[in-house]
Amino acid sequence: MKIIIVGASGTMGKYLVSAFEKEHEIVKVSTNDGDIPTDITSPDAIEKMYKQAGAFDALICTAGPTYVGPWKTLTDKEFRKGIEGKLMGQINLVLIGQHYINPKGSFTLITGALTHEPQLKFANASAANGAVEAFVRAAAIELGNGVRINAVSPTVIENSPQYFPFFPGEIPTTMKALEYGFRKSVSGAGTGQIITMH
Amino acid sequence: MKIIIVGASGTMGKYLVSAFEKEHEIVKVSTNDGDIPTDITSPDAIEKMYKQAGAFDALICTAGPTYVGPWKTLTDKEFRKGIEGKLMGQINLVLIGQHYINPKGSFTLITGALTHEPQLKFANASAANGAVEAFVRAAAIELGNGVRINAVSPTVIENSPQYFPFFPGEIPTTMKALEYGFRKSVSGAGTGQIITMH
Repeated sequence: MKIIIVGASGTMGKYLVSAFEKEHEIVKVSTNDGDIPTDITSPDAIEKMYKQAGAFDALICTAGPTYVGPWKTLTDKEFRKGIEGKLMGQINLVLIGQHYINPKGSFTLITGALTHEPQLKFANASAANGAVEAFVRAAAIELGNGVRINAVSPTVIENSPQYFPFFPGEIPTTMKALEYGFRKSVSGAGTGQIITMH
Repeated sequence: MKIIIVGASGTMGKYLVSAFEKEHEIVKVSTNDGDIPTDITSPDAIEKMYKQAGAFDALICTAGPTYVGPWKTLTDKEFRKGIEGKLMGQINLVLIGQHYINPKGSFTLITGALTHEPQLKFANASAANGAVEAFVRAAAIELGNGVRINAVSPTVIENSPQYFPFFPGEIPTTMKALEYGFRKSVSGAGTGQIITMH
């Protein structure tokens, strides 16, 4: 399979590239490096990325910028980070990518436990996750040519210990579990699923 | 109680105004008329509305513009209708309103069955609903002074028969059930709840 991994230079992305590149052709996409640099907050940049990548069988997105910070001073301005990033960035990857993906291909987006289990300072990520999960269910009944779509929902991941203090009592998602979640989406038959590991 | 109803001139809003005005002081807010006209897609307009309304005990929002239309030609442009309207419009009502609401007050936002039960042509509303529901859960652990927040989630409502064809097999939510949902949020003790009637 030819798999585009968006966020390929991040903590999750790097791990998934090394896990999937043994069996698949990987196109690495990230903000500043990778095979194709792109900015997922720009629909034009996404369109260019797909044109450069060519037809593909699966898209994995691990890129989800959101705002983390105090609630009391949270305004529209800070909230836009997650709206443009994790939310519209991922939705535009699908709205645009549907015109480039091969029949029976798949999209796998990233959400997280914050959809249902909020943590202080992470309201922006909760909202972005909730939107993407509902979008995944809606897109699953719309996409043609047997194209599937799912989301993978970890909690805080084991390779990002800097976030552990924000997730008290959460058992971190192992990188192996995360990999298996993406494998289930890419190689399984499910669509409209939120594949959770928490 | 002094209750601000946003979307007061809409189908839901009108019904709720007449149901609540017997017992409460109602401030009617809507795009073009009401006691205070406002545009919920503008944080500045929301701020002005709150300044004009003065301190209040409850905010009810029934305003949720979203894009309804074919999937194949859906782009970032159309998707922004729900992002700016039902999603950021409602979130900004809370982010800004937290600085004006009385202690022990409540916010009640509007979502809908589309979060979990998608329908063709309504992906934009699904995403907006999902975001607002996750935001409600996140805001509930952040809001101070005993302020609560919930969402009311109807399916297609009985007074909007023009939408029935888009919701095959859905038993419409009665206006009475909708009213009771809002009553539960405004006068109950719950917070972070999605009050569903489907």
